[in-house]
Amino acid sequence: MLTELFPFWTKYWYHVLITIVAYIFLKLFYKILKKDAIFIEKNKQNFDISNIIKQLKETNQETEDSEESALPKDLKHIPYEYKRPSEMELFCQASEFYKIVTARRTIRFFSSDPVPKEVIYEIIKAAGTAPSGAHTEPWTFVAVSNQKIKEQIRYIVESEEEINYKKRMGVKWTTDLLPLRTNWIKEYLTTAPYLLLVFKQIYGILPNGKKKIHYYNEMSTCIACGILITAIQYAGLVTLTSTPLNCGPAIRNLLGRPSNEKLVVLLPVGYPAKDATVPDLQRKSLSDILVEID
Amino acid sequence: MLTELFPFWTKYWYHVLITIVAYIFLKLFYKILKKDAIFIEKNKQNFDISNIIKQLKETNQETEDSEESALPKDLKHIPYEYKRPSEMELFCQASEFYKIVTARRTIRFFSSDPVPKEVIYEIIKAAGTAPSGAHTEPWTFVAVSNQKIKEQIRYIVESEEEINYKKRMGVKWTTDLLPLRTNWIKEYLTTAPYLLLVFKQIYGILPNGKKKIHYYNEMSTCIACGILITAIQYAGLVTLTSTPLNCGPAIRNLLGRPSNEKLVVLLPVGYPAKDATVPDLQRKSLSDILVEID
Repeated sequence: MLTELFPFWTKYWYHVLITIVAYIFLKLFYKILKKDAIFIEKNKQNFDISNIIKQLKETNQETEDSEESALPKDLKHIPYEYKRPSEMELFCQASEFYKIVTARRTIRFFSSDPVPKEVIYEIIKAAGTAPSGAHTEPWTFVAVSNQKIKEQIRYIVESEEEINYKKRMGVKWTTDLLPLRTNWIKEYLTTAPYLLLVFKQIYGILPNGKKKIHYYNEMSTCIACGILITAIQYAGLVTLTSTPLNCGPAIRNLLGRPSNEKLVVLLPVGYPAKDATVPDLQRKSLSDILVEID
Repeated sequence: MLTELFPFWTKYWYHVLITIVAYIFLKLFYKILKKDAIFIEKNKQNFDISNIIKQLKETNQETEDSEESALPKDLKHIPYEYKRPSEMELFCQASEFYKIVTARRTIRFFSSDPVPKEVIYEIIKAAGTAPSGAHTEPWTFVAVSNQKIKEQIRYIVESEEEINYKKRMGVKWTTDLLPLRTNWIKEYLTTAPYLLLVFKQIYGILPNGKKKIHYYNEMSTCIACGILITAIQYAGLVTLTSTPLNCGPAIRNLLGRPSNEKLVVLLPVGYPAKDATVPDLQRKSLSDILVEID
Protein backbone atom coordinates (compact mmCIF):
# COMPACT_ATOMS: atom_id res chain seq x y z
CA MET A 1 0.00 0.00 0.00
CA LEU A 2 2.84 2.35 0.89
CA THR A 3 4.57 1.38 -2.32
CA GLU A 4 1.51 2.42 -4.22
CA LEU A 5 1.21 5.75 -2.46
CA PHE A 6 4.90 6.75 -2.63
CA PRO A 7 6.48 4.57 -5.28
CA PHE A 8 9.57 6.75 -5.61
CA TRP A 9 10.31 7.16 -1.89
CA THR A 10 9.87 3.53 -0.87
CA LYS A 11 12.13 2.39 -3.66
CA TYR A 12 14.87 5.02 -3.54
CA TRP A 13 14.70 6.41 0.00
CA TYR A 14 18.12 5.03 0.85
CA HIS A 15 19.73 6.88 -2.05
CA VAL A 16 18.32 10.13 -0.75
CA LEU A 17 19.32 9.28 2.80
CA ILE A 18 22.85 8.36 1.81
CA THR A 19 23.19 11.62 -0.13
CA ILE A 20 22.02 13.67 2.86
CA VAL A 21 24.14 11.76 5.37
CA ALA A 22 27.20 11.90 3.11
CA TYR A 23 26.76 15.66 2.67
CA ILE A 24 26.48 16.28 6.41
CA PHE A 25 29.36 13.92 7.04
CA LEU A 26 31.68 15.65 4.56
CA LYS A 27 30.78 19.08 5.91
CA LEU A 28 31.49 18.02 9.48
CA PHE A 29 34.67 16.30 8.45
CA TYR A 30 35.89 19.50 6.80
CA LYS A 31 34.97 21.47 9.91
CA ILE A 32 36.92 19.09 12.15
CA LEU A 33 39.99 19.24 9.93
CA LYS A 34 39.86 23.02 10.11
CA LYS A 35 39.42 22.99 13.90
CA ASP A 36 42.26 20.51 14.33
CA ALA A 37 44.53 22.77 12.35
CA ILE A 38 43.67 25.65 14.69
CA PHE A 39 44.14 23.40 17.70
CA ILE A 40 47.56 22.19 16.62
CA GLU A 41 48.61 25.74 15.92
CA LYS A 42 47.25 26.92 19.27
CA ASN A 43 49.19 24.24 21.11
CA LYS A 44 52.35 24.96 19.19
CA GLN A 45 52.10 28.61 20.04
CA ASN A 46 51.34 28.06 23.69
CA PHE A 47 53.66 30.08 25.97
CA ASP A 48 55.19 31.60 22.85
CA ILE A 49 55.14 35.28 22.03
CA SER A 50 54.09 34.44 18.47
CA ASN A 51 50.47 33.77 19.36
CA ILE A 52 50.15 37.51 19.87
CA ILE A 53 50.21 37.83 16.08
CA LYS A 54 47.15 35.64 15.76
CA GLN A 55 45.24 37.50 18.43
CA LEU A 56 46.13 40.77 16.79
CA LYS A 57 45.14 39.50 13.34
CA GLU A 58 41.78 38.51 14.76
CA THR A 59 41.34 42.00 16.17
CA ASN A 60 42.61 43.28 12.83
CA GLN A 61 39.73 41.63 11.04
CA GLU A 62 37.27 43.37 13.31
CA THR A 63 38.81 46.72 12.59
CA GLU A 64 39.75 45.99 8.99
CA ASP A 65 37.83 48.89 7.57
CA SER A 66 39.58 51.52 9.67
CA GLU A 67 42.94 51.67 8.00
CA GLU A 68 43.93 54.97 9.44
CA SER A 69 46.90 55.07 11.76
CA ALA A 70 46.12 55.55 15.44
CA LEU A 71 48.86 58.20 15.50
CA PRO A 72 48.91 61.30 13.28
CA LYS A 73 50.44 60.39 9.90
CA ASP A 74 52.53 63.54 9.79
CA LEU A 75 53.93 62.97 13.29
CA LYS A 76 57.04 65.18 13.62
CA HIS A 77 60.36 63.76 14.71
CA ILE A 78 62.32 66.11 16.92
CA PRO A 79 65.89 66.06 18.27
CA TYR A 80 66.22 64.15 21.54
CA GLU A 81 67.65 66.43 24.20
CA TYR A 82 70.19 64.63 26.33
CA LYS A 83 72.93 65.56 28.76
CA ARG A 84 75.42 62.74 28.96
CA PRO A 85 76.41 61.88 32.54
CA SER A 86 79.98 60.95 33.41
CA GLU A 87 80.70 57.27 34.06
CA MET A 88 80.88 58.08 37.75
CA GLU A 89 77.50 59.82 37.69
CA LEU A 90 76.00 56.86 35.82
CA PHE A 91 77.22 54.46 38.47
CA CYS A 92 76.15 56.64 41.40
CA GLN A 93 72.68 57.16 39.96
CA ALA A 94 72.22 53.48 39.11
CA SER A 95 73.41 52.55 42.57
CA GLU A 96 71.15 55.14 44.25
CA PHE A 97 68.13 53.76 42.40
CA TYR A 98 69.00 50.22 43.46
CA LYS A 99 69.15 51.35 47.10
CA ILE A 100 65.68 52.88 46.81
CA VAL A 101 64.00 49.88 45.21
CA THR A 102 65.75 47.20 47.23
CA ALA A 103 64.19 48.73 50.37
CA ARG A 104 60.73 47.98 48.94
CA ARG A 105 58.80 45.21 50.67
CA THR A 106 55.33 43.84 50.08
CA ILE A 107 53.28 45.02 53.06
CA ARG A 108 50.14 43.24 54.29
CA PHE A 109 49.39 45.45 57.33
CA PHE A 110 48.20 48.99 56.64
CA SER A 111 47.47 52.06 58.69
CA SER A 112 44.10 53.65 57.92
CA ASP A 113 45.64 57.14 57.99
CA PRO A 114 44.61 59.07 54.90
CA VAL A 115 47.05 59.88 52.11
CA PRO A 116 46.70 63.20 50.22
CA LYS A 117 45.13 62.59 46.82
CA GLU A 118 47.73 64.86 45.20
CA VAL A 119 50.34 62.19 46.03
CA ILE A 120 48.21 59.55 44.33
CA TYR A 121 47.95 61.80 41.25
CA GLU A 122 51.75 62.05 40.95
CA ILE A 123 52.09 58.28 41.33
CA ILE A 124 49.51 57.55 38.62
CA LYS A 125 51.08 60.17 36.33
CA ALA A 126 54.41 58.35 36.73
CA ALA A 127 52.83 54.98 35.83
CA GLY A 128 51.30 56.60 32.76
CA THR A 129 54.76 57.32 31.32
CA ALA A 130 55.31 53.61 30.62
CA PRO A 131 56.13 52.59 27.06
CA SER A 132 53.36 50.79 25.16
CA GLY A 133 52.93 49.01 21.84
CA ALA A 134 52.53 51.64 19.08
CA HIS A 135 52.01 54.23 21.89
CA THR A 136 48.47 53.01 22.58
CA GLU A 137 48.70 53.58 26.38
CA PRO A 138 46.25 50.72 27.03
CA TRP A 139 45.60 51.26 30.75
CA THR A 140 43.07 52.66 33.20
CA PHE A 141 43.87 53.31 36.86
CA VAL A 142 40.96 53.34 39.27
CA ALA A 143 41.74 54.94 42.66
CA VAL A 144 39.18 53.94 45.26
CA SER A 145 39.09 55.82 48.57
CA ASN A 146 35.34 55.39 49.15
CA GLN A 147 34.93 53.16 52.22
CA LYS A 148 31.74 51.45 51.02
CA ILE A 149 33.27 50.52 47.67
CA LYS A 150 36.40 49.25 49.44
CA GLU A 151 34.16 47.05 51.60
CA GLN A 152 32.40 45.69 48.54
CA ILE A 153 35.73 44.97 46.85
CA ARG A 154 36.86 43.18 50.01
CA TYR A 155 33.68 41.13 50.02
CA ILE A 156 34.20 40.08 46.38
CA VAL A 157 37.88 39.27 46.89
CA GLU A 158 37.42 37.35 50.15
CA SER A 159 34.52 35.30 48.78
CA GLU A 160 36.56 34.26 45.74
CA GLU A 161 39.80 33.84 47.64
CA GLU A 162 38.18 31.48 50.11
CA ILE A 163 37.18 29.25 47.20
CA ASN A 164 40.63 29.73 45.64
CA TYR A 165 42.44 28.67 48.81
CA LYS A 166 40.06 25.82 49.65
CA LYS A 167 39.41 24.41 46.21
CA ARG A 168 41.00 25.97 43.15
CA MET A 169 44.63 26.51 44.10
CA GLY A 170 45.44 22.99 45.24
CA VAL A 171 47.75 21.70 47.95
CA LYS A 172 50.98 22.70 46.21
CA TRP A 173 50.12 26.36 45.81
CA THR A 174 48.71 26.87 49.28
CA THR A 175 51.74 25.02 50.71
CA ASP A 176 54.02 27.39 48.80
CA LEU A 177 52.18 30.33 50.31
CA LEU A 178 52.19 29.02 53.91
CA PRO A 179 55.52 30.62 54.89
CA LEU A 180 54.17 33.98 53.71
CA ARG A 181 51.19 33.52 56.11
CA THR A 182 48.66 34.64 53.54
CA ASN A 183 45.06 33.49 53.53
CA TRP A 184 41.72 34.66 52.17
CA ILE A 185 41.19 37.29 54.86
CA LYS A 186 42.31 40.57 53.31
CA GLU A 187 41.91 43.18 56.00
CA TYR A 188 44.14 45.62 54.16
CA LEU A 189 41.44 46.02 51.50
CA THR A 190 39.40 48.10 53.94
CA THR A 191 42.17 49.63 56.08
CA ALA A 192 44.43 51.03 53.34
CA PRO A 193 43.28 54.57 52.45
CA TYR A 194 43.53 53.87 48.72
CA LEU A 195 42.96 50.85 46.52
CA LEU A 196 44.53 51.28 43.09
CA LEU A 197 43.01 48.94 40.51
CA VAL A 198 44.92 48.67 37.26
CA PHE A 199 42.95 47.63 34.18
CA LYS A 200 44.37 46.73 30.79
CA GLN A 201 42.30 47.87 27.82
CA ILE A 202 42.25 44.92 25.44
CA TYR A 203 41.16 47.33 22.71
CA GLY A 204 40.41 51.05 22.55
CA ILE A 205 37.48 52.97 21.06
CA LEU A 206 38.20 55.56 18.37
CA PRO A 207 36.18 58.82 18.24
CA ASN A 208 34.22 57.29 15.30
CA GLY A 209 33.19 54.39 17.55
CA LYS A 210 35.45 51.86 15.83
CA LYS A 211 37.77 49.59 17.74
CA LYS A 212 41.42 50.57 18.06
CA ILE A 213 43.91 47.73 18.35
CA HIS A 214 45.96 47.67 21.55
CA TYR A 215 49.18 45.81 20.78
CA TYR A 216 50.75 44.02 23.73
CA ASN A 217 48.20 45.51 26.12
CA GLU A 218 48.90 43.04 28.95
CA MET A 219 52.66 43.42 28.73
CA SER A 220 52.47 47.22 28.49
CA THR A 221 50.12 47.42 31.47
CA CYS A 222 52.35 45.17 33.60
CA ILE A 223 55.37 47.34 32.74
CA ALA A 224 53.27 50.35 33.85
CA CYS A 225 52.56 48.44 37.09
CA GLY A 226 56.32 48.06 37.62
CA ILE A 227 56.69 51.83 37.36
CA LEU A 228 53.61 52.34 39.58
CA ILE A 229 55.03 50.12 42.33
CA THR A 230 58.35 51.95 42.09
CA ALA A 231 56.58 55.34 42.26
CA ILE A 232 54.77 54.27 45.45
CA GLN A 233 58.09 53.21 46.98
CA TYR A 234 59.89 56.36 45.84
CA ALA A 235 57.16 58.58 47.31
CA GLY A 236 57.53 56.87 50.69
CA LEU A 237 54.34 54.80 50.80
CA VAL A 238 53.86 51.04 50.82
CA THR A 239 51.83 48.58 48.78
CA LEU A 240 51.11 44.92 48.09
CA THR A 241 51.03 43.54 44.56
CA SER A 242 47.92 41.40 44.33
CA THR A 243 46.20 39.69 41.44
CA PRO A 244 42.77 38.69 42.76
CA LEU A 245 42.00 35.40 41.01
CA ASN A 246 38.56 35.25 39.38
CA CYS A 247 37.47 38.61 40.83
CA GLY A 248 38.06 40.61 37.64
CA PRO A 249 34.52 40.63 36.17
CA ALA A 250 32.77 41.28 39.51
CA ILE A 251 35.11 44.16 40.40
CA ARG A 252 34.87 45.55 36.87
CA ASN A 253 31.06 45.59 37.16
CA LEU A 254 31.19 47.13 40.63
CA LEU A 255 33.41 49.95 39.38
CA GLY A 256 31.36 50.37 36.20
CA ARG A 257 34.29 49.80 33.88
CA PRO A 258 33.54 48.95 30.22
CA SER A 259 33.92 45.42 28.82
CA ASN A 260 37.18 46.22 26.97
CA GLU A 261 38.89 46.64 30.34
CA LYS A 262 40.23 43.68 32.35
CA LEU A 263 41.60 43.86 35.88
CA VAL A 264 45.34 43.15 36.04
CA VAL A 265 46.44 44.04 39.57
CA LEU A 266 44.99 45.49 42.74
CA LEU A 267 47.33 47.60 44.88
CA PRO A 268 46.34 48.84 48.34
CA VAL A 269 48.35 52.02 48.99
CA GLY A 270 49.06 53.80 52.23
CA TYR A 271 51.30 53.86 55.29
CA PRO A 272 52.24 50.57 56.98
CA ALA A 273 50.58 49.70 60.30
CA LYS A 274 52.80 50.49 63.30
CA ASP A 275 53.32 46.81 64.09
CA ALA A 276 53.65 45.70 60.45
CA THR A 277 55.88 42.68 59.93
CA VAL A 278 57.39 41.21 56.78
CA PRO A 279 58.64 37.68 56.08
CA ASP A 280 62.43 37.54 56.43
CA LEU A 281 62.97 36.79 52.73
CA GLN A 282 66.24 36.93 50.85
CA ARG A 283 66.43 37.94 47.21
CA LYS A 284 68.42 35.98 44.65
CA SER A 285 71.96 37.27 44.19
CA LEU A 286 73.08 39.02 41.00
CA SER A 287 74.89 35.89 39.79
CA ASP A 288 71.62 33.94 40.09
CA ILE A 289 69.70 36.26 37.80
CA LEU A 290 72.34 37.69 35.43
CA VAL A 291 74.09 35.91 32.57
CA GLU A 292 76.88 37.91 30.92
CA ILE A 293 77.94 37.30 27.34
CA ASP A 294 80.95 39.46 26.57
CA MET B 1 25.28 -11.62 -12.89
CA LEU B 2 26.58 -9.58 -9.97
CA THR B 3 23.38 -10.38 -8.13
CA GLU B 4 24.14 -14.06 -8.52
CA LEU B 5 27.70 -13.78 -7.29
CA PHE B 6 26.99 -11.56 -4.27
CA PRO B 7 23.30 -11.84 -3.55
CA PHE B 8 23.57 -10.36 -0.07
CA TRP B 9 25.78 -7.40 -0.90
CA THR B 10 23.96 -6.25 -3.99
CA LYS B 11 20.65 -6.39 -2.19
CA TYR B 12 21.60 -5.00 1.22
CA TRP B 13 24.76 -2.96 0.60
CA TYR B 14 22.98 0.27 1.43
CA HIS B 15 21.99 -1.01 4.87
CA VAL B 16 25.61 -1.74 5.66
CA LEU B 17 26.72 1.57 4.22
CA ILE B 18 24.11 3.51 6.19
CA THR B 19 25.15 1.75 9.39
CA ILE B 20 28.83 2.59 8.83
CA VAL B 21 28.14 6.16 7.81
CA ALA B 22 25.75 6.68 10.73
CA TYR B 23 28.32 5.31 13.16
CA ILE B 24 31.08 7.60 11.87
CA PHE B 25 28.66 10.49 11.80
CA LEU B 26 27.56 9.99 15.41
CA LYS B 27 31.14 9.61 16.59
CA LEU B 28 32.22 12.80 14.85
CA PHE B 29 29.18 14.61 16.12
CA TYR B 30 30.08 13.67 19.69
CA LYS B 31 33.65 14.78 19.10
CA ILE B 32 32.51 18.16 17.79
CA LEU B 33 30.20 18.69 20.73
CA LYS B 34 33.08 17.98 23.09
CA LYS B 35 35.45 20.27 21.20
CA ASP B 36 32.88 23.05 21.11
CA ALA B 37 32.55 22.79 24.85
CA ILE B 38 36.31 23.20 25.21
CA PHE B 39 36.26 26.05 22.73
CA ILE B 40 33.51 27.89 24.53
CA GLU B 41 35.36 27.46 27.80
CA LYS B 42 38.62 28.61 26.22
CA ASN B 43 36.95 31.68 24.78
CA LYS B 44 35.26 32.43 28.05
CA GLN B 45 38.60 32.36 29.78
CA ASN B 46 40.37 34.30 27.09
CA PHE B 47 41.81 37.58 28.37
CA ASP B 48 40.65 36.60 31.85
CA ILE B 49 42.95 36.18 34.78
CA SER B 50 41.10 32.98 35.68
CA ASN B 51 42.80 30.87 33.02
CA ILE B 52 45.93 31.18 35.10
CA ILE B 53 44.36 28.73 37.53
CA LYS B 54 44.03 26.14 34.80
CA GLN B 55 47.61 26.57 33.67
CA LEU B 56 48.85 26.37 37.23
CA LYS B 57 46.75 23.29 37.97
CA GLU B 58 48.29 21.63 34.93
CA THR B 59 51.76 22.47 36.20
CA ASN B 60 50.61 21.33 39.62
CA GLN B 61 49.91 17.88 38.28
CA GLU B 62 53.44 17.63 36.95
CA THR B 63 54.91 18.55 40.29
CA GLU B 64 52.29 16.85 42.41
CA ASP B 65 54.74 14.67 44.26
CA SER B 66 56.88 17.51 45.55
CA GLU B 67 54.66 18.92 48.25
CA GLU B 68 57.33 20.87 50.00
CA SER B 69 57.03 24.63 50.08
CA ALA B 70 59.42 26.50 47.82
CA LEU B 71 60.14 28.82 50.79
CA PRO B 72 61.43 27.64 54.18
CA LYS B 73 58.51 26.48 56.32
CA ASP B 74 59.82 28.23 59.40
CA LEU B 75 60.30 31.54 57.58
CA LYS B 76 60.63 34.24 60.23
CA HIS B 77 58.47 37.34 60.18
CA ILE B 78 60.31 40.45 61.30
CA PRO B 79 59.18 44.01 62.07
CA TYR B 80 59.10 46.27 59.02
CA GLU B 81 61.31 49.27 59.59
CA TYR B 82 59.73 52.44 58.31
CA LYS B 83 60.23 56.16 58.71
CA ARG B 84 57.01 57.94 57.88
CA PRO B 85 57.54 60.97 55.62
CA SER B 86 55.53 64.15 56.12
CA GLU B 87 52.73 64.82 53.64
CA MET B 88 54.94 67.47 52.04
CA GLU B 89 57.82 65.02 51.68
CA LEU B 90 55.47 62.44 50.19
CA PHE B 91 54.30 64.90 47.57
CA CYS B 92 57.78 66.19 46.75
CA GLN B 93 59.17 62.70 46.37
CA ALA B 94 56.24 61.49 44.26
CA SER B 95 56.56 64.60 42.10
CA GLU B 96 60.33 64.19 41.78
CA PHE B 97 59.90 60.60 40.60
CA TYR B 98 57.32 61.68 38.04
CA LYS B 99 59.75 64.27 36.64
CA ILE B 100 62.43 61.60 36.25
CA VAL B 101 60.25 59.04 34.48
CA THR B 102 58.33 61.49 32.30
CA ALA B 103 61.65 62.49 30.71
CA ARG B 104 62.08 58.90 29.49
CA ARG B 105 61.72 58.36 25.75
CA THR B 106 62.09 55.26 23.61
CA ILE B 107 65.32 55.78 21.67
CA ARG B 108 66.04 54.09 18.32
CA PHE B 109 69.45 55.68 17.61
CA PHE B 110 72.34 54.62 19.81
CA SER B 111 75.96 55.64 20.25
CA SER B 112 78.40 52.74 20.21
CA ASP B 113 80.31 54.20 23.17
CA PRO B 114 80.84 51.54 25.82
CA VAL B 115 78.99 51.60 29.14
CA PRO B 116 80.76 50.36 32.30
CA LYS B 117 79.50 46.91 33.22
CA GLU B 118 79.23 47.97 36.86
CA VAL B 119 76.38 50.27 35.82
CA ILE B 120 74.62 47.34 34.12
CA TYR B 121 75.04 45.32 37.34
CA GLU B 122 73.27 47.99 39.41
CA ILE B 123 70.45 48.18 36.86
CA ILE B 124 69.89 44.41 36.84
CA LYS B 125 70.06 44.30 40.64
CA ALA B 126 67.29 46.92 40.73
CA ALA B 127 65.11 44.90 38.34
CA GLY B 128 65.65 41.84 40.55
CA THR B 129 63.89 43.56 43.45
CA ALA B 130 60.51 43.22 41.69
CA PRO B 131 57.72 41.43 43.53
CA SER B 132 56.82 37.95 42.23
CA GLY B 133 54.17 35.32 42.86
CA ALA B 134 55.08 33.41 46.06
CA HIS B 135 58.55 35.07 45.84
CA THR B 136 59.65 32.77 42.99
CA GLU B 137 61.70 35.48 41.20
CA PRO B 138 61.01 33.85 37.82
CA TRP B 139 63.43 35.84 35.64
CA THR B 140 66.81 35.66 33.93
CA PHE B 141 68.58 38.71 32.53
CA VAL B 142 71.12 38.11 29.78
CA ALA B 143 73.49 41.03 29.16
CA VAL B 144 75.16 40.74 25.76
CA SER B 145 78.12 42.99 24.96
CA ASN B 146 79.87 40.53 22.61
CA GLN B 147 79.77 42.06 19.11
CA LYS B 148 79.46 38.74 17.25
CA ILE B 149 76.51 37.62 19.37
CA LYS B 150 74.89 41.03 18.90
CA GLU B 151 75.29 40.60 15.12
CA GLN B 152 73.70 37.18 15.27
CA ILE B 153 70.79 38.50 17.34
CA ARG B 154 70.36 41.29 14.79
CA TYR B 155 70.34 38.75 11.97
CA ILE B 156 67.64 36.67 13.71
CA VAL B 157 65.52 39.71 14.56
CA GLU B 158 65.79 41.36 11.13
CA SER B 159 65.00 38.13 9.27
CA GLU B 160 61.87 37.58 11.35
CA GLU B 161 60.89 41.23 11.40
CA GLU B 162 61.01 41.46 7.61
CA ILE B 163 58.47 38.61 7.45
CA ASN B 164 56.48 40.23 10.28
CA TYR B 165 56.27 43.57 8.50
CA LYS B 166 55.65 42.12 5.02
CA LYS B 167 53.32 39.26 5.89
CA ARG B 168 52.33 38.59 9.47
CA MET B 169 51.46 41.97 10.92
CA GLY B 170 48.95 43.05 8.28
CA VAL B 171 48.14 46.47 6.84
CA LYS B 172 46.54 47.85 10.01
CA TRP B 173 49.50 47.22 12.29
CA THR B 174 52.17 48.46 9.90
CA THR B 175 50.00 51.53 9.19
CA ASP B 176 49.79 52.17 12.93
CA LEU B 177 53.58 52.02 13.13
CA LEU B 178 54.24 54.28 10.11
CA PRO B 179 54.29 57.55 12.11
CA LEU B 180 56.92 56.01 14.39
CA ARG B 181 59.09 55.31 11.29
CA THR B 182 59.95 51.81 12.42
CA ASN B 183 60.81 48.99 10.01
CA TRP B 184 62.65 45.70 10.09
CA ILE B 185 66.12 47.25 9.97
CA LYS B 186 67.33 47.34 13.58
CA GLU B 187 70.73 49.02 13.49
CA TYR B 188 70.63 49.66 17.22
CA LEU B 189 71.00 45.92 17.85
CA THR B 190 74.65 46.14 16.81
CA THR B 191 75.47 49.75 17.79
CA ALA B 192 74.17 49.76 21.40
CA PRO B 193 76.97 48.58 23.73
CA TYR B 194 74.59 46.27 25.62
CA LEU B 195 71.60 44.18 24.71
CA LEU B 196 69.60 43.14 27.76
CA LEU B 197 67.40 40.12 27.08
CA VAL B 198 64.78 39.40 29.71
CA PHE B 199 63.53 35.82 29.99
CA LYS B 200 60.62 34.60 32.09
CA GLN B 201 61.11 31.18 33.66
CA ILE B 202 57.84 29.35 33.11
CA TYR B 203 58.92 26.93 35.84
CA GLY B 204 61.99 26.53 38.04
CA ILE B 205 64.16 23.50 38.83
CA LEU B 206 64.54 22.47 42.48
CA PRO B 207 67.87 21.10 43.77
CA ASN B 208 66.32 17.59 43.62
CA GLY B 209 65.65 18.08 39.90
CA LYS B 210 61.90 18.46 40.31
CA LYS B 211 59.95 21.29 38.75
CA LYS B 212 59.11 24.33 40.87
CA ILE B 213 55.92 26.18 39.96
CA HIS B 214 56.38 29.79 38.96
CA TYR B 215 53.10 31.56 39.69
CA TYR B 216 52.34 34.55 37.46
CA ASN B 217 55.78 34.30 35.84
CA GLU B 218 54.87 36.50 32.84
CA MET B 219 53.26 39.20 34.94
CA SER B 220 56.09 39.21 37.49
CA THR B 221 58.73 39.42 34.76
CA CYS B 222 56.94 42.31 33.03
CA ILE B 223 56.74 44.17 36.35
CA ALA B 224 60.51 43.58 36.69
CA CYS B 225 60.90 45.02 33.17
CA GLY B 226 59.06 48.15 34.32
CA ILE B 227 61.60 48.55 37.13
CA LEU B 228 64.47 47.74 34.72
CA ILE B 229 63.38 50.43 32.25
CA THR B 230 63.06 52.91 35.11
CA ALA B 231 66.52 51.96 36.44
CA ILE B 232 68.05 52.61 32.99
CA GLN B 233 66.37 56.02 32.89
CA TYR B 234 67.35 56.87 36.47
CA ALA B 235 70.99 55.96 35.79
CA GLY B 236 71.08 58.33 32.81
CA LEU B 237 71.10 55.83 29.92
CA VAL B 238 68.52 55.20 27.22
CA THR B 239 66.72 52.14 25.92
CA LEU B 240 64.00 50.87 23.61
CA THR B 241 61.37 48.39 24.77
CA SER B 242 61.16 45.75 22.08
CA THR B 243 59.36 42.43 21.89
CA PRO B 244 60.86 40.65 18.89
CA LEU B 245 57.95 38.67 17.41
CA ASN B 246 58.72 35.01 16.71
CA CYS B 247 62.42 35.39 17.56
CA GLY B 248 62.18 33.88 21.06
CA PRO B 249 63.22 30.27 20.34
CA ALA B 250 66.08 31.19 17.96
CA ILE B 251 67.53 33.75 20.39
CA ARG B 252 67.07 31.35 23.31
CA ASN B 253 69.04 28.68 21.42
CA LEU B 254 71.73 31.19 20.40
CA LEU B 255 72.21 32.23 24.03
CA GLY B 256 72.06 28.65 25.26
CA ARG B 257 69.17 29.28 27.64
CA PRO B 258 67.19 26.27 28.92
CA SER B 259 63.74 25.37 27.62
CA ASN B 260 61.93 26.65 30.74
CA GLU B 261 62.97 30.20 29.79
CA LYS B 262 61.04 32.28 27.25
CA LEU B 263 62.13 35.65 25.88
CA VAL B 264 59.88 38.49 27.03
CA VAL B 265 61.64 41.70 26.00
CA LEU B 266 64.89 42.81 24.38
CA LEU B 267 66.34 46.13 25.55
CA PRO B 268 69.32 47.76 23.84
CA VAL B 269 71.04 49.93 26.45
CA GLY B 270 73.54 52.73 25.99
CA TYR B 271 73.90 56.43 25.22
CA PRO B 272 71.77 57.99 22.49
CA ALA B 273 73.45 58.86 19.17
CA LYS B 274 74.35 62.56 18.90
CA ASP B 275 71.72 63.18 16.24
CA ALA B 276 69.05 60.95 17.84
CA THR B 277 65.48 62.05 17.18
CA VAL B 278 62.21 61.00 18.79
CA PRO B 279 58.65 61.22 17.48
CA ASP B 280 56.88 64.27 18.92
CA LEU B 281 54.37 62.20 20.89
CA GLN B 282 52.05 63.43 23.59
CA ARG B 283 51.04 61.27 26.54
CA LYS B 284 47.46 60.93 27.72
CA SER B 285 46.52 63.38 30.46
CA LEU B 286 45.85 62.25 34.04
CA SER B 287 42.08 62.58 33.55
CA ASP B 288 42.31 60.18 30.58
CA ILE B 289 43.92 57.41 32.61
CA LEU B 290 42.64 57.95 36.17
CA VAL B 291 39.16 57.24 37.51
CA GLU B 292 38.59 58.42 41.10
CA ILE B 293 36.00 56.81 43.34
CA ASP B 294 35.81 58.75 46.58
